[in-house]
Amino acid sequence: MLTRIDHVGIACRDLEQKIAFYESTFGLAVVSLEVNEPQGVREAMLQVVPGPDGAAGGSYVQLLEPLGPDTPVGRFLERRGEGVHHVGYGVADITAALAEIGATGVRLIDSRPRHGSLGASIAFLHPADVGGVLTELVQAAPAAAAD
Amino acid sequence: MLTRIDHVGIACRDLEQKIAFYESTFGLAVVSLEVNEPQGVREAMLQVVPGPDGAAGGSYVQLLEPLGPDTPVGRFLERRGEGVHHVGYGVADITAALAEIGATGVRLIDSRPRHGSLGASIAFLHPADVGGVLTELVQAAPAAAAD
Repeated sequence: MLTRIDHVGIACRDLEQKIAFYESTFGLAVVSLEVNEPQGVREAMLQVVPGPDGAAGGSYVQLLEPLGPDTPVGRFLERRGEGVHHVGYGVADITAALAEIGATGVRLIDSRPRHGSLGASIAFLHPADVGGVLTELVQAAPAAAAD
Repeated sequence: MLTRIDHVGIACRDLEQKIAFYESTFGLAVVSLEVNEPQGVREAMLQVVPGPDGAAGGSYVQLLEPLGPDTPVGRFLERRGEGVHHVGYGVADITAALAEIGATGVRLIDSRPRHGSLGASIAFLHPADVGGVLTELVQAAPAAAAD
């Protein structure tokens, strides 16, 4: 069911500072910088492995800065400090994966996919049912049609 | 410098139970089950993406059960509960990577590589210098010579 480790989501207090750190220390490059209002974050995707057709569908470090203290990532920082916030795994068909996982009894935070980085469809699973790991499923955006 | 997300290391209290969960919920399969006495853990590698030559060099979920309470993972569980313990990234040349990263001022927990899962050479970087993320570098074992 899982096709790759799509990303590791890392909560930070200063997005630009942390981007500069990952660029200079590990040689990663930003492929996406977005504000996701519904999730209350500014987020950067730094590419570790490219996708088969370009930016989407590879492996990334995702850096997350909360838009305010009263957001999921803001509360995480308050409670735990900076660090790994969640893990995202690639799936080929997120609707089928959610149905299959939901049938095992794991609670779905998102019963329907929503919008994620790089145009992906994403959904979160409840960390209490996945051994303390906030787990995300990611179906990458389809490649743009060739000219 | 980073070639892949080698693994996400997840601390758990009951290794067999968590292996069964990842197998049945996500369809992953165990490719390695080892005791690492120096690190004080029993650990399983569950393959998400195979390596180019077989088991080593792919992407994995690594499940970690402490050998006792007075071990790094035992203390992590006591302090934080089950969840993501560290992130491991693939590198082609771990000695060169450690020299390059050390030169930036990031403190190395291991200044020389040591033995990791699947015959890899590994080294940890200090989480306080990597935004709260215990970060591991992984040079996969060379592929076995063909017959």
